[in-house]
Amino acid sequence: MARVINFNPGPATLPVEALERAQRELLELGDTGASVIEHSHRGKAYEAVHNEAISLVRELLGVSNDYDVLLMQGGASAQFAMVPMNLLKQGQSADYIITGSWSKKAFGEAQIVGTARVAATTEKDKKFPRIPKQADLELDPKAAYVHITSNNTIAGTQWQQFPNVGSVPLIADMSSDIMWRPIDISKFGLVYAGAQKNIGPSGITVVIIRKDLVEAGRDDIPKIFRYTTHAAANSLSNTPPTFPIYLLRNVLDVTKQLGGLAAAEKRNRDKAKLVYDAIAARPDFYRSPVEADSRSMMNVVFNLPTPELEAEFVAEGLKAGMMGLKGHRSVGGIRASIYNACPRAWVETLVAFMKDFHKGS
Amino acid sequence: MARVINFNPGPATLPVEALERAQRELLELGDTGASVIEHSHRGKAYEAVHNEAISLVRELLGVSNDYDVLLMQGGASAQFAMVPMNLLKQGQSADYIITGSWSKKAFGEAQIVGTARVAATTEKDKKFPRIPKQADLELDPKAAYVHITSNNTIAGTQWQQFPNVGSVPLIADMSSDIMWRPIDISKFGLVYAGAQKNIGPSGITVVIIRKDLVEAGRDDIPKIFRYTTHAAANSLSNTPPTFPIYLLRNVLDVTKQLGGLAAAEKRNRDKAKLVYDAIAARPDFYRSPVEADSRSMMNVVFNLPTPELEAEFVAEGLKAGMMGLKGHRSVGGIRASIYNACPRAWVETLVAFMKDFHKGS
Repeated sequence: MARVINFNPGPATLPVEALERAQRELLELGDTGASVIEHSHRGKAYEAVHNEAISLVRELLGVSNDYDVLLMQGGASAQFAMVPMNLLKQGQSADYIITGSWSKKAFGEAQIVGTARVAATTEKDKKFPRIPKQADLELDPKAAYVHITSNNTIAGTQWQQFPNVGSVPLIADMSSDIMWRPIDISKFGLVYAGAQKNIGPSGITVVIIRKDLVEAGRDDIPKIFRYTTHAAANSLSNTPPTFPIYLLRNVLDVTKQLGGLAAAEKRNRDKAKLVYDAIAARPDFYRSPVEADSRSMMNVVFNLPTPELEAEFVAEGLKAGMMGLKGHRSVGGIRASIYNACPRAWVETLVAFMKDFHKGS
Repeated sequence: MARVINFNPGPATLPVEALERAQRELLELGDTGASVIEHSHRGKAYEAVHNEAISLVRELLGVSNDYDVLLMQGGASAQFAMVPMNLLKQGQSADYIITGSWSKKAFGEAQIVGTARVAATTEKDKKFPRIPKQADLELDPKAAYVHITSNNTIAGTQWQQFPNVGSVPLIADMSSDIMWRPIDISKFGLVYAGAQKNIGPSGITVVIIRKDLVEAGRDDIPKIFRYTTHAAANSLSNTPPTFPIYLLRNVLDVTKQLGGLAAAEKRNRDKAKLVYDAIAARPDFYRSPVEADSRSMMNVVFNLPTPELEAEFVAEGLKAGMMGLKGHRSVGGIRASIYNACPRAWVETLVAFMKDFHKGS
């Protein structure tokens, strides 16, 4: 088996130990005589996995008992709709801070469900080169909530410091950077994340929500889309996606074994610095379109002098064993997604390649 | 590795060949250098799997081009809500035929979303011993649709002949019996099924919907919950649950190799007959609570003379290597779920055990 260097933006590379464990156990979980996929979601064998996944989310992020941790289906896209369906009542308005196409999509769903306004946007010539500063925010103190996207995979930007939104609940889509470092969950009303970048496979979404917000949720929407339904049933109201949750558990277990989120932050900052330094060292050739204090530690985007050189960079990179370096089709350029599971060695290979490619051009 | 005899009602046993293939390929799909779980949903490697899964659904069920085949998240429970959200407009009413707790749940969500009525129910003393006959149905000829549950896992009943609903679209939740036999899809407006009984793991839902119903769907609901969104994007509007879809593909491929749905029906009828005959052979000891022409070929439920004997049957069965024989907590008794992937040999073991247990009591 050969494993390529995988810079995919998501679904992304996973810790090989988590996959190897899944492979070993695929036909029989423990000594139960059946695959985790074949176990009842109401049986002891699966429930242990389910509860361990939730406990690991709590432990790694330091989630207090004031919050529920829910395991849901539908990805961040379903949360774009469920957040306003549950938390945006008639007569209320919600604030959205727009830093890229994912925030725009979330805002779009909120506008369909109720009243939503833009509290800030950093859009400029169809791009989003930065995260807004506190002074840029025009916040409604009566808003039902303020919604942000913590990391923008396409623009390559990331909130380094979260905004101060007073007593209004702060809601963050952390799909592309959850658990990249320790954060203070108590500053948030709700955090959600599709797992497929930092913490698991696609098909499972983690929702961390303050219990008072669960309770305050609207009850005129379908039961399956109410947070109360899933919170009351420990996310077992209907059959959960058992294998994705199992693999989430495996990945979080590896994260814990590697020293938790403080250690993850060190590794991630170190990896990102390698690439950003490689860009800065050749300013005539590589250029970051992102303002310095808004740069993402997860998705490093950069440009070469021409689109033709960028295409050649991607093609030569692939020949050199590196997958997923093409920037998003809406913005072009190069993108290296270096999530938690991306090893330092892969980044070193990329940086050496950047040096050689520059020399050869 | 020892595999137990697994009569779980769902998630249920899967063809061992489908799991072994997944195990072999778990760290590397083909010669791509990455797990299917780590591939981009927009890349060629995953797209081939995705499209093969959809093609196999079309081929096995004979789905014409008048229908879209969608791969979605959220299970049948999400469809309970999405069906009326999309297809039940203001001023319209939908008909629900109630044959168990799953139809009741679907009806409950429809009542939240709009106006729904009961066209028939077979509830009797909190149980559902039969499927209604055509003469029992009080259908509204102007209904937006008629909703049925094709197989009832708890009651152990199954529609052997589908109802005649005239020109009103017939919608069926086939979660627990899709692909147990060939059916004429053209009789339905929409068929949906959580995969975790007959066709795959939990976390993936197949929706087969007539294109005119897709197009007629409401556009005042969140985009992520519109059938139009998923149909227009070949179910790639947002990141799909890639591993569950991959495993669905593996299972459907096995179904095809084994002769398709005509062969599956033969095997399923043969297995079910073994158990029903074993019940009928000892009428003083085993008793089916289900009327003869309503009996399920997927979930065979039966009672023993006392709850104590039933508990002993389950416990002794487990010692004999048979998992999942306990009836649903709401009705008690015994339940053997013998879906497509349950081998005849397991049913033979059960039938021999039934004989011995009767003798020993």
